[in-house]
Amino acid sequence: MNFSKEFTSAILIIGNEILSGRTVDKNTSFIAKWLGDLGINVEEVRIIPDKEKVIIDSLNELRKKYQYVFTTGGIGPTHDDITSESVAKAFGRKYDYNKEAYSILEKYYVNSDFNEGRKKMARMPEGATLIYNKNGSAPAFSVENVFVLPGIPSYVESMIPQLKKVLISGKKIISVSCDAKVRESSIAVDLENIQNKYPDIDIGSYPYSNKDGFGTMLVMRGIEEDKINECKQAIETMIKKFN
Amino acid sequence: MNFSKEFTSAILIIGNEILSGRTVDKNTSFIAKWLGDLGINVEEVRIIPDKEKVIIDSLNELRKKYQYVFTTGGIGPTHDDITSESVAKAFGRKYDYNKEAYSILEKYYVNSDFNEGRKKMARMPEGATLIYNKNGSAPAFSVENVFVLPGIPSYVESMIPQLKKVLISGKKIISVSCDAKVRESSIAVDLENIQNKYPDIDIGSYPYSNKDGFGTMLVMRGIEEDKINECKQAIETMIKKFN
Repeated sequence: MNFSKEFTSAILIIGNEILSGRTVDKNTSFIAKWLGDLGINVEEVRIIPDKEKVIIDSLNELRKKYQYVFTTGGIGPTHDDITSESVAKAFGRKYDYNKEAYSILEKYYVNSDFNEGRKKMARMPEGATLIYNKNGSAPAFSVENVFVLPGIPSYVESMIPQLKKVLISGKKIISVSCDAKVRESSIAVDLENIQNKYPDIDIGSYPYSNKDGFGTMLVMRGIEEDKINECKQAIETMIKKFN
Repeated sequence: MNFSKEFTSAILIIGNEILSGRTVDKNTSFIAKWLGDLGINVEEVRIIPDKEKVIIDSLNELRKKYQYVFTTGGIGPTHDDITSESVAKAFGRKYDYNKEAYSILEKYYVNSDFNEGRKKMARMPEGATLIYNKNGSAPAFSVENVFVLPGIPSYVESMIPQLKKVLISGKKIISVSCDAKVRESSIAVDLENIQNKYPDIDIGSYPYSNKDGFGTMLVMRGIEEDKINECKQAIETMIKKFN
């Protein structure tokens, strides 16, 4: 399947807790599905540690390669939150208080101590555009084609809809599945023939096993609904041969 | 925390189903924890599509940069399984039937059709070392410092213990947690002071919220048990100030 290069993106997951295996990353799945609906394909995901040089190098590589980059993690108040400063360095921008973010946080912490850790969350690359947190706490931000999001999945989910109006969307990527209750090794040859007939559709074959035995989930992904329906019929006819 | 470069690794997740958001990757967490027990640190994870050039380029970059690379996915019987052939190309090796793998599969499919798709799973880079599947079906393999594993988590979990005898282990990475029932923005400054006092320990700060309110899970990671215990005491003393 050839997506236009225009609608490409990468996700950069920043956080030792994912790399150590302590936490299973859930943001990739949510962001990728949301982008798929906008016709923006995720071409690559990288998970990297909270290390400045690695963040800068990875970000500079990805932001040149893809139309959009979404980072998650590392924008909180503690010593291991170094994403915002690293993003500023990657863009060669000053890292300083963002006035609007500062006043949002000042208001949010009006009845508690507005300490250094909390103030830190208002520091961003110069010229950053805020992405608001619905509960009125620390905002995220974007710089050029890079969207810098928090690591907590519920925050990501509440913030990301705001980006709909700034992203240039493509055609919605349609995903359709067929459950073939046969082993994938039985249908491999026939399936390849169907894939060759529909080069613009990505056919994925995912084996599974459950109490009823082995099966294969066949997933078609593409942007042309008619072609996908045609392909689906071809697959359903093929499956019948094996049942 | 400075791990010796000797004990570094990367995980390369190959599969459109993860990039599209359809499937949440569970292999990273399992492999990373298992490697942590052997003292091998995962420095980077990449999730890439089933595209030959991307697989070759990513693999060649990672296998030079880290002591070990673990790939998952794309070694099954269908058209979208192109990992084995891509690994052969990355190493400049022939891609052909591995005799031992062929005879394992021939035996496994003795009562069913040993078709082209099934035979394909015996094709590997020349000189590959097999990693056996306990149920007697398709083996995985390694070439030099690259371990090519399947995508199905239960297969990965059954195969990976075999690698213990071939990997050069370091000192087990110890991970200890403290549940601070305070917001991380309250403790940020004190926590940074503790981190500065224990530079060889990675202190991660992970905020959470539940029905009892906000809290922060503090995770210490390192290889020296005494230092970790000392650091943990310092953190517990600090937490008390806020309770």
